[in-house]
Amino acid sequence: MITLYDLPTKTVPGTMITWRTRYALNLKNLPFQVVDVELPDVEALAKKIGAAPTSTKSDGVSPFYTIPIIQDDSTGAVVSDSIDIAAYLDKTYPSSGPVLIPTGTKALQLAFSSAVVDAFAPFRPFFAHNMTKKVNDATAAYFLRVRLGGVAKDAPEGEEREKLLTSAKQNLGKINKWFEGSEGDFVMGNEPCFADTAICAFLQFTRTMLGEESEEWKDVASWDDGRWGKYLEIFKPYEKLL
Amino acid sequence: MITLYDLPTKTVPGTMITWRTRYALNLKNLPFQVVDVELPDVEALAKKIGAAPTSTKSDGVSPFYTIPIIQDDSTGAVVSDSIDIAAYLDKTYPSSGPVLIPTGTKALQLAFSSAVVDAFAPFRPFFAHNMTKKVNDATAAYFLRVRLGGVAKDAPEGEEREKLLTSAKQNLGKINKWFEGSEGDFVMGNEPCFADTAICAFLQFTRTMLGEESEEWKDVASWDDGRWGKYLEIFKPYEKLL
Repeated sequence: MITLYDLPTKTVPGTMITWRTRYALNLKNLPFQVVDVELPDVEALAKKIGAAPTSTKSDGVSPFYTIPIIQDDSTGAVVSDSIDIAAYLDKTYPSSGPVLIPTGTKALQLAFSSAVVDAFAPFRPFFAHNMTKKVNDATAAYFLRVRLGGVAKDAPEGEEREKLLTSAKQNLGKINKWFEGSEGDFVMGNEPCFADTAICAFLQFTRTMLGEESEEWKDVASWDDGRWGKYLEIFKPYEKLL
Repeated sequence: MITLYDLPTKTVPGTMITWRTRYALNLKNLPFQVVDVELPDVEALAKKIGAAPTSTKSDGVSPFYTIPIIQDDSTGAVVSDSIDIAAYLDKTYPSSGPVLIPTGTKALQLAFSSAVVDAFAPFRPFFAHNMTKKVNDATAAYFLRVRLGGVAKDAPEGEEREKLLTSAKQNLGKINKWFEGSEGDFVMGNEPCFADTAICAFLQFTRTMLGEESEEWKDVASWDDGRWGKYLEIFKPYEKLL
């Protein structure tokens, strides 16, 4: 059995990046269990189970540990970082589900997922406002201290809100243009790959944070001829939480 | 014979984006001739030979025409936009040279080339300063009016210069990380693709604008264990100007 270490929330589980791995595991039809870890406990967990750090802290030296992390009982492997997890799943379970990182495309997949992260940046003030309410106290306090500098942000309103939404719309519109001439619904055509999990992870998180019934989410879902809402519909079978 | 419409300059020919197509034609070992076109004459040329616009002007409606444009006598095709030109060359000359856009990778290639454009953005003030000196008068006047708002910029100096170079170094460092674990020198491994032409086009242009002997270019060439300088060395055989 594969264990996915993920952040517990009061509503839909998981945080933006860990959704890449939930989708990946489900796309590859691999059974997994989820073990909750609050953000302030990620470093201790990673050290305990031998998960590698994924980058360095702002001092440029100290190792920085992040989720998702998976632990695979059948091989003993512990893997962190969503791209490395996808590569591990491709290598270990080659005949199960689509190849997430077709040969030679790793750098391209990372360029795409980086573009996705940047494109969703204008939503961050909306996320920040809602995040502290939707996670447990330990994570909320950590998030407030480490990521928000101790100050809870108000939801963006008025002119600021319009500006952020317009900017997000332009960013997603740019990505939408990259799909022009594509024969399927996915980044690489007819089969989903790592880049699709990167987009859907952010769409999923955006929907949770804005609220599925909110005016903002309905807007996002309708942009680019409804591509973003439709994307999550297509990925719905891969949302299942084992 | 294929004709490439390109910008004449007083030094190394070509502008940043057209270098993508020079490299593409050379990688595919296709003979071509270059016909010069000054920037203010691109629209009239495109309309005359039936080249499609590549985007819209800042009003969001009027068609915007850009180089590179190629015209292929053997098929009668006229193609604009570097990604469409690469796709055309793959389709029309499938057995000549590497496949520039392997099946299913178009959106990924565009994500990568977009990341390259963004990464080089801090160099723009250096480019702007030098551009007007290295092109002919017609293009220099057009560039000054349309792109620089009529004001010739000074070369960045002192703190501003350091800040821009630090920012460019960070951006390229991020791209360098995407290559980690790659088995070859190129984005997709051992064979160059469209994304490689996008990087090398900007490196080539940067080298020309900063000056091959400048301290700035020597710096850039040395970053990331010399990856960027080495890239242009590897691409040197594909610089030839037919």
